[in-house]
Amino acid sequence: MTARPANAHQARLLRLLRDGGPNSRAQLGDQIDLSRSKLAVEVDRLLETGLIVADGFAASRGGRRSHNIRLAPELRFLGVDIGATSIDVAVTNPELEVLGHLNQPMDVREGPVAVFEQVLAMAAKLKASGIAEGFDGAGIGVPGPVRFPEGIPVAPPIMPGWDGFPVREALSQELGCPVMVDNDVNLMAMGEQHAGVARSVGDFLCVKIGTGIGCGIVVGGHVYRGTTGSAGDIGHIQVDPDGRACACGNRGCLEAHFSGAALARDAEDAARTGRSQELAAKLEASGRLTAVDVAAAAAAGDATSLQLIREGGNRVGQVIAGLVSFFNPGLVVIGGGVTGLGHNLLAAVRTQVYRQSLPLATGNLPIVLGELGPVAGVIGAARLISDHLFSPA
Amino acid sequence: MTARPANAHQARLLRLLRDGGPNSRAQLGDQIDLSRSKLAVEVDRLLETGLIVADGFAASRGGRRSHNIRLAPELRFLGVDIGATSIDVAVTNPELEVLGHLNQPMDVREGPVAVFEQVLAMAAKLKASGIAEGFDGAGIGVPGPVRFPEGIPVAPPIMPGWDGFPVREALSQELGCPVMVDNDVNLMAMGEQHAGVARSVGDFLCVKIGTGIGCGIVVGGHVYRGTTGSAGDIGHIQVDPDGRACACGNRGCLEAHFSGAALARDAEDAARTGRSQELAAKLEASGRLTAVDVAAAAAAGDATSLQLIREGGNRVGQVIAGLVSFFNPGLVVIGGGVTGLGHNLLAAVRTQVYRQSLPLATGNLPIVLGELGPVAGVIGAARLISDHLFSPA
Repeated sequence: MTARPANAHQARLLRLLRDGGPNSRAQLGDQIDLSRSKLAVEVDRLLETGLIVADGFAASRGGRRSHNIRLAPELRFLGVDIGATSIDVAVTNPELEVLGHLNQPMDVREGPVAVFEQVLAMAAKLKASGIAEGFDGAGIGVPGPVRFPEGIPVAPPIMPGWDGFPVREALSQELGCPVMVDNDVNLMAMGEQHAGVARSVGDFLCVKIGTGIGCGIVVGGHVYRGTTGSAGDIGHIQVDPDGRACACGNRGCLEAHFSGAALARDAEDAARTGRSQELAAKLEASGRLTAVDVAAAAAAGDATSLQLIREGGNRVGQVIAGLVSFFNPGLVVIGGGVTGLGHNLLAAVRTQVYRQSLPLATGNLPIVLGELGPVAGVIGAARLISDHLFSPA
Repeated sequence: MTARPANAHQARLLRLLRDGGPNSRAQLGDQIDLSRSKLAVEVDRLLETGLIVADGFAASRGGRRSHNIRLAPELRFLGVDIGATSIDVAVTNPELEVLGHLNQPMDVREGPVAVFEQVLAMAAKLKASGIAEGFDGAGIGVPGPVRFPEGIPVAPPIMPGWDGFPVREALSQELGCPVMVDNDVNLMAMGEQHAGVARSVGDFLCVKIGTGIGCGIVVGGHVYRGTTGSAGDIGHIQVDPDGRACACGNRGCLEAHFSGAALARDAEDAARTGRSQELAAKLEASGRLTAVDVAAAAAAGDATSLQLIREGGNRVGQVIAGLVSFFNPGLVVIGGGVTGLGHNLLAAVRTQVYRQSLPLATGNLPIVLGELGPVAGVIGAARLISDHLFSPA
């Protein structure tokens, strides 16, 4: 794909076809502020570029039957979601439906060279499976702040070796297609917005609880990234002035008290000090504990594990309560690896928010788990690059 | 003024003339994405409506000399800022410069009928002084959340009797002109953006510390009001789980620990328990204490007053630190009555924010006092109504 829309109307048409699938000219005309003749001109121009194709007749609405149009079905986007401990890579069609998806464990601390070698191998494997001949664009998520226009990670706390690495430029050369880079949390928010629980919500928060904690902020349908790209960096909001020492140098940061990493540490501590037989058995069996173990132990009735989940939910709920008062969102989505803790976690978060935030802000506020699980990030990545490609050049 | 711009281009031209003052067609053309001939058409149509007028010749840029145009100089906006304990009313010209300004004490708890009687009397007095023949529109700020499209206060905690009162409709009838209503904190943010310290900043926070505490949020140059209009309601964010009981029913809310009202209470307590001779003398003299007294005592070297200011600054700084991590603003403005506490307050706020927020978010972040003092709100109110009138009908 080398063509790009020539103006804002064409860009809007492409996004409507991406988000709504094949459609008739007549129905597109209803959704866009263009006269019938001007719409026809823009559609014809897009047909010439090959970005869209005719797709049979639409159902009649009376009068002449209208042609359906759709995005060129051979368009392929690559979505890459680099987490702290694993990599997700997926290929989507132009409507951002996942055609193939791979997940592999990988420590982001091995650095950009090793990680991208892995990413390229995974992309090649997906291509070899026959779902894509090439990629028209790729979106990449990394677990840290990104200088967005340039696509470069900045001072990412859990990503030593990545500071200043030109991710966008390097991957664009390797893949031979346009690349956009963003924080993994923003991509999760975009994924849930495109195909998950946040469809049709204009202003919402998406809190990702994985190894760390971050928050995607969507304002009027668009991701808000802040002045230096660090918006949503809530892991170091203080929840207890006399709390635990955090890797950032402060005390009582949210992440020090609750995150995938903190929970694993607390669980191992509970196992070693004899507070949980269940966790002790799991630790002996596998040598380490994760959020998944804590969730399983809680489900099996282990009181200590349940307590750990509740305390964690209270901590993150305390922070979300403040954000709800401040931001007055229409929806709060909780996602990330720790959502395996499920409804125990959600109940604790909700309790804090509904107790602490003012009724006016919480009156109609749903607080829900994400719907897409591990594909939220890759769908968000595909949306990121398609937003870029479906903008006037 | 009955005319409204017919399209987005005309609206943009009117706002450019409001914000930049009289200007030449040539220079307006540089700022707006219109061909020379289309610009001429839109300018001619605006001249016909009477919204703009010709204003002599511009300095030559070579070639034919360009005509200056400006907003019709007789346009008058009324800005009204209703606080918890006083009312500000001002009249501005079309460039939102204040031509006359009155301030009177008034308890908002006396209810909308009494308050608006006062507002109308003040507006009449300004008119009688000869600066306005009538008002083309009025902006009104109230100290509580507002259902913005309808201009109706909703469940305002410090405004008993106002819940559901149709402010917009009632005042529009009384004044005989269009009216828009917003939260006072949003208006302060718009005022500082138009004529104060936040000019040219796209994303910023404006924290108003008066009787209560609130925060105006500006995203991409526009006030963000949230899903139900309560965004920025930070007064009830919890700063101490074991803290003071708050009027809202929770414990440890920011407002319970620091605000104009909390500071006055703490100061009177310090006076009565003998911790401050300075405050005791002031209390005996006037029967009550306010933030102004605490500021004066601190300036006179009273250690207890200084301590109160520092503790308050620490509390509000603690909350702002979290908001800075979350929102990554380009600027934080502190305004409202308590800014009389000045640099002692600011130093305490800055200390907390620079210590607790991540360096990436605070690197280039200025935290400053508002520049406009009590006129920030009325200028913001004039901007609010002019934004409305300078939009396509």
